[in-house]
Amino acid sequence: MPNIFVKVPEPTLRRLPWYLAYAKLARQGGETHISSTQFAQKIGIDASVVAKDFSFVTLSGKTRVGYEIDELIRALDEFLGFSNRHSAFLFGAGSLGSSLLHDGGLKQYGLDLVAAFDVKYELVGTYINHIPIQHLDKFEEIQRQTRVNIGVLAVPVEVAQETADRMVAGGIKAIWNFTPFRIRVPENIVVQNTSLYAHLAVMFNRLREEQELEARNVLKQTGL
Amino acid sequence: MPNIFVKVPEPTLRRLPWYLAYAKLARQGGETHISSTQFAQKIGIDASVVAKDFSFVTLSGKTRVGYEIDELIRALDEFLGFSNRHSAFLFGAGSLGSSLLHDGGLKQYGLDLVAAFDVKYELVGTYINHIPIQHLDKFEEIQRQTRVNIGVLAVPVEVAQETADRMVAGGIKAIWNFTPFRIRVPENIVVQNTSLYAHLAVMFNRLREEQELEARNVLKQTGL
Repeated sequence: MPNIFVKVPEPTLRRLPWYLAYAKLARQGGETHISSTQFAQKIGIDASVVAKDFSFVTLSGKTRVGYEIDELIRALDEFLGFSNRHSAFLFGAGSLGSSLLHDGGLKQYGLDLVAAFDVKYELVGTYINHIPIQHLDKFEEIQRQTRVNIGVLAVPVEVAQETADRMVAGGIKAIWNFTPFRIRVPENIVVQNTSLYAHLAVMFNRLREEQELEARNVLKQTGL
Repeated sequence: MPNIFVKVPEPTLRRLPWYLAYAKLARQGGETHISSTQFAQKIGIDASVVAKDFSFVTLSGKTRVGYEIDELIRALDEFLGFSNRHSAFLFGAGSLGSSLLHDGGLKQYGLDLVAAFDVKYELVGTYINHIPIQHLDKFEEIQRQTRVNIGVLAVPVEVAQETADRMVAGGIKAIWNFTPFRIRVPENIVVQNTSLYAHLAVMFNRLREEQELEARNVLKQTGL
């Protein structure tokens, strides 16, 4: 078990899945051991950063030739929470929400969407990918019965805050926020923001910069 | 037009969509003007940060009572690239990939998936949400005809790097990487990593921390 009183830095938590993905790939390629140096080279991260990141994960499979891959994968999967099953509710079964219901990968990584809530009566009683859609008014009752405490927020932006308030009042402890709205919650509630559209904005901006840089280089080469 | 020679910091680019979402909400509520202080209070960000973020966006609608909302929304939409149409290809029409094809929100924010590529022959020739799925072998030809230069990468992790290499060789300039694999690309290629599973890991970890903190507090209160 990891030391529960050490707060793992977020950059570390974001890099660990990269190591996991690479380790799985190496295992498929027939390798049995892997070293920090290998990770560093293959993933393009400084070896000291890799070693520091791994210091948060208790690993027993370290040998002179590196980490034992099976053990490393098991330890990372467990540390990252991917090997446990976390039940979750989806709030908002519109365009983005229903696309999340279609993504079987979430379950593979430990997030099991067990029900979705929406206010549209035409959706209530239907299923997407075998997951039932219920009216939002049923949330509190179903939460009391199931004790599900993770909620995925994919409602329209204008009701993001009121839905988040209702989730928290109804027992949700962690909110995965897919809306572009910055919701406010009590201090003890975990919020993970994943705004696809904010990532899009970053990508569009960087692409524009690269294109402008290229245009300037062309102008320079032609002597203009 | 923004000053094209100033590189906009990524944290700014990530916050600007929050302001945009809030401004749209305020407009729906009937407001016509909005001040930096209002943003700061409503979104919970320091007013000086808000002012600094807005300094990157050329805004003409600033008055004594704050920004004119319509002008602010127009300027942010344009600056963030949401009001332009960017054609893009999807690579990998599996679970996550097809869920992205279902998400109409991407188009609303400027990303128009015009074709998907996969290697599974049973998918080739089919459509998801009116978007055609082609065999990956058609990519280079279709790229030459269309000049599409944005690619969304949603293939299995074991082929992430080779697919990225092929995308770059075939003319893709920006890769939105949804795989948990850290792909390596030439310096002039833009990569935006959006690993949903890395975000999941962060959320699981934070939730566990909160639960352990709560357990410790309960123990302390009961005098144990």
